[in-house]
Amino acid sequence: MTAQMIHNLRSDASDNRARILAAARAAFAADGLDVPVREIARRAQVSAATVYRRFPTKEALFTEAFAEQLTLCSSIVEEGFAAADPWHGLSLVVEKLLEANARDRGMRTLLSRLSQTVDFTADRRRTLRMVLDLIRRAKDAGDLRPDIVLEDIVLAIMANDGIQADSPGTRAAASRRFAALMLQSFRANPVPAPLPPAVRLLPAP
Amino acid sequence: MTAQMIHNLRSDASDNRARILAAARAAFAADGLDVPVREIARRAQVSAATVYRRFPTKEALFTEAFAEQLTLCSSIVEEGFAAADPWHGLSLVVEKLLEANARDRGMRTLLSRLSQTVDFTADRRRTLRMVLDLIRRAKDAGDLRPDIVLEDIVLAIMANDGIQADSPGTRAAASRRFAALMLQSFRANPVPAPLPPAVRLLPAP
Repeated sequence: MTAQMIHNLRSDASDNRARILAAARAAFAADGLDVPVREIARRAQVSAATVYRRFPTKEALFTEAFAEQLTLCSSIVEEGFAAADPWHGLSLVVEKLLEANARDRGMRTLLSRLSQTVDFTADRRRTLRMVLDLIRRAKDAGDLRPDIVLEDIVLAIMANDGIQADSPGTRAAASRRFAALMLQSFRANPVPAPLPPAVRLLPAP
Repeated sequence: MTAQMIHNLRSDASDNRARILAAARAAFAADGLDVPVREIARRAQVSAATVYRRFPTKEALFTEAFAEQLTLCSSIVEEGFAAADPWHGLSLVVEKLLEANARDRGMRTLLSRLSQTVDFTADRRRTLRMVLDLIRRAKDAGDLRPDIVLEDIVLAIMANDGIQADSPGTRAAASRRFAALMLQSFRANPVPAPLPPAVRLLPAP
């Protein structure tokens, strides 16, 4: 085998890998985690065997396809977890997750499919445990309502998904306002805090 | 022309009308208000001329296609507007619109396309004016934050759209909790009020 042939094989392999990951992202976004691996292979125009050779499980394929988003998620939660004030830490997590979710389609897929990800990896379990600990500490500090639970943060992330606007800038501004409103609703003994500006989403009557 | 022939013509006409309205609902849901009338005609398998004969403008077609939802919308707003306490009236409007939005796909189309409905009919203008008046009165009573605007209610409706769940029952319960959280965030000098139960949207870590 010549150096050129080896180079070509390697470059085919890397094309395949990129094509499989792009097909997986599109398929997970459209059809959720139930999409069969053979359907992802079909979209990537490779055989199912080729997909399984590179990604032994659907979970492994999902984790690779959303590697960037999973890393961002973990780093946002780590930053919030490390904050001295748990309420500020939790606010930071909600604000940054909603911002990332508004900006990135991959993040929307990842977060909106969380409820289907039954088989969490160790890393994702660790991230979730950090959020749960932050919730507990913010309650102990008297800043978070005692009846707010992890599901309310999931609810905020999902709801953030429904916001539509004419431009990415308006979309981001609407999400900032929405995050501030959600956090306001989470507060124990709330004092009305200033909100980011409202966003025009509707023509005047 | 025999009575039978007249009967057949009438029944064709009513089939056409139902087909056009069903096609319009599907097209507006998928593609928004920009969808061309000729595309709706194509989906309904009639000529564009047939559509225009029955519905002279796209606005008229939209209003007919979502007649039921528009009526429900108006009646919810009228009920809230008539409440003695403006905060209760506004809460009722938010809760009932979000509930209807969660239950009915047509309502989701209507409400999510509100921002594109440039040419409001007199009836819709009246409904919007009632909401604006309710907002003003709830602020005057000291119950609604002075910085909450109509767009925040639109934001709540849009966000409600992003909530996903495994069953209609869970979806409705999640929406009830979400509406209560949004209302909590709208309150001036809020006292934490009890929330409807949280909904499991995510497997335990």
